[in-house]
Formats: sequence, C-alpha cells, structure tokens
Amino acid sequence: MLGNEILTYLSRFAPITEEIKKAISESTFIKAYKKGHVLLKEGQVSNECYFILKGCIRCFSLEDGEEKTIEIYTEAQSVVPTNYGTSHPSEYYLECVEDTILNLGNPEIEKETFEKYPELESLSRMIAEKMLLEQHQSFSRFKASTPEERYLNLVKTRPDLVQRIPLYQIASYLGVKPESLSRIRKRIMDKE
Amino acid sequence: MLGNEILTYLSRFAPITEEIKKAISESTFIKAYKKGHVLLKEGQVSNECYFILKGCIRCFSLEDGEEKTIEIYTEAQSVVPTNYGTSHPSEYYLECVEDTILNLGNPEIEKETFEKYPELESLSRMIAEKMLLEQHQSFSRFKASTPEERYLNLVKTRPDLVQRIPLYQIASYLGVKPESLSRIRKRIMDKE
Repeated sequence: MLGNEILTYLSRFAPITEEIKKAISESTFIKAYKKGHVLLKEGQVSNECYFILKGCIRCFSLEDGEEKTIEIYTEAQSVVPTNYGTSHPSEYYLECVEDTILNLGNPEIEKETFEKYPELESLSRMIAEKMLLEQHQSFSRFKASTPEERYLNLVKTRPDLVQRIPLYQIASYLGVKPESLSRIRKRIMDKE
Repeated sequence: MLGNEILTYLSRFAPITEEIKKAISESTFIKAYKKGHVLLKEGQVSNECYFILKGCIRCFSLEDGEEKTIEIYTEAQSVVPTNYGTSHPSEYYLECVEDTILNLGNPEIEKETFEKYPELESLSRMIAEKMLLEQHQSFSRFKASTPEERYLNLVKTRPDLVQRIPLYQIASYLGVKPESLSRIRKRIMDKE
C-alpha cells in the first residue's frame, strides 16, 4: 500500500516498469516517528535519507539560540540532509513537526539496489536533475521576490503549510520577522 | 586539451575510467562566445546546457526594467537553465559577462551517450545529487545569513567574482541595494 505512494511519485519522472516495481518492493524500509522526534541534530553525521509517506519534517538551524527555519517538507517529498553520505557534521536539525511515516534510504541500500536494477539508477538521475532545476527555480524566485510576494507564492503553491506549522516558523522560512509577516498578512486581508 | 578540464571536473565525483574518457571525447561539443552574447532570453525554450571551460555567465531576471542577478557561473561550473529540456519559456536571461568558451550539451546527446556508456549515467547521477546538496546548502546559508555575512562568504569562497563583475550586480546577487553593499564594504574596511 505504502509502496504505491512511492511508485506514484516516481511515475512523475518516467514510466514505471516491472523492474522498477521489483526494485522498490525490495528496497522499501518504512519507519514511523512521533511528533517532535529529531531525526538529525547539528554536529551529527548523516547516513540516512527519507521519503515522506505521511507527515511533515522541518529543517532548521540554531543561531544564538534562535531557530531559523530553512525548509519544510511534506508528503511525497524526499529529504536528503546536506551532509548525507559524507563525513561532515550537520549544520542543521531535522524535526518531525507531526507524527510522520518515512521510507528510509542509505548509501549501502542505494549502491546494492542500483547494481541490481540499473533502470532505477537511470530514474534516480532524472529525479535528481529535475529536483536540481526545481530547487534552482525556487532559490531564484526567492532572491528576486519581496517578502510579500514570497508569502503569496507560498499560500498559492503550498496552501496546507500555513495550517500545519506555526506562523513564526513560516516567517523564518520566508526570511522575515514574525511582526513583518503579521503586517504582510494584514495588508493582504485589507486588500481582499 | 579542453577535454581534460571536463575530466578533472568529473574526477571530483568518481574515478575516471577508460569508458568515461571515451564517452567524453565523443560527446564534447565546444563553442566560443563574445562578451555580451546572450545565450538565453526570457520567454525562450531551452534545449542546451553548458559547462564553462573559460569565462563567466550571469543569470538574471528583468523586473520592471531592473535586472536582478540570480547566479554567476565561472570556470568548471555547469549551467543548466531551469527550463532545460522542457517546453516551458525561460523566466531568466543567460549572458556571457566575458569572452566565454563552453562545452554544450542537449537532451539528445545525453540520451545517446548514456545508452552507449552507462557508466557516465551513473556518474551523472552522483554529480546531480552532489550539486543538489551543494545548492541546498547555499540556499540554506543564504536564508539564514545577514547581507554582511553573505558578502563575507562570497569574498571567501569566490574571491575572483568581486573583480570580475560590477558591484551593482554583486549587490543584486546578494539580495541588497547597491548603497547597502557600499555601506557593508565600508564597515568591513573600517574594522580591518
């Protein structure tokens, strides 16, 4: 059942062949975490990447005791720590914002599976390249936009987020102070 | 000779086998452009990606007649337009800031080469995943830092850029007004 969600995700990038179905069924490793569970802490080495089947993960850094929300991931997104598979300590935290069910991956599983199923490696290349472009796109848009535009874009593209995580975390994610976000929201409501 | 630079770049990610050397020598397609040449305009479809052998490319958007510098690429970086290989019109411009020599790629060359040399596809997956992490890292740092920290980080990690492109473009790249960048630079010099 849960494997289906992964297959649906993968089918955005290429047709799902029998080989890929087999590869997924063999490499699926699912785990559930409670709200508040910290998957990765600052300073830790990371050997795990995730695909979210249900729930929400927040990536943040701690600077002088203040949390800066860097990214928020929800269903059908993959989460790869920036130090994944390296010996570098993490600069970030990954925290489950809700009860969360994840499919876990690690470099050994990946290597084995790719050797056995080359088609899955080809698909992974396409996914990584597509994600690279999407991320480049959102970084570009972030840089070129005002905080108000960033907020409107967030509400448009990921309307559930505003319901799922506290506003001060949304503010930090948009790179503004909570007071500024309140003003932006008021200005938008006044306009409507 | 120029192929060597590509091989050096690739060797950061995996050992270079004879198969990969052969794949590169067969798929290399080099072209030179004059300073000021526009590789991609807003509204255009993109079917080309680039690897910079020499020179500098700037990615920018035009908003109400004002240029916003999104990214600056130099030697041994690859440049993949965000709409590469899709039918979407570009939101950005790509311009040669200096006389520039590029290795060109396109989806057809890629497909052919990967079918013939599966090892290169495996290497491409690793590169795309590594770039994804690096880009994620710089986006995260950008969000979590002040304009002064961003400038100091730029001087530290890419000292040549400040010499190669005008300061108003650096300002825009850092997401600040040119006056703010002048104040930041003055403050830093006063401290030294």
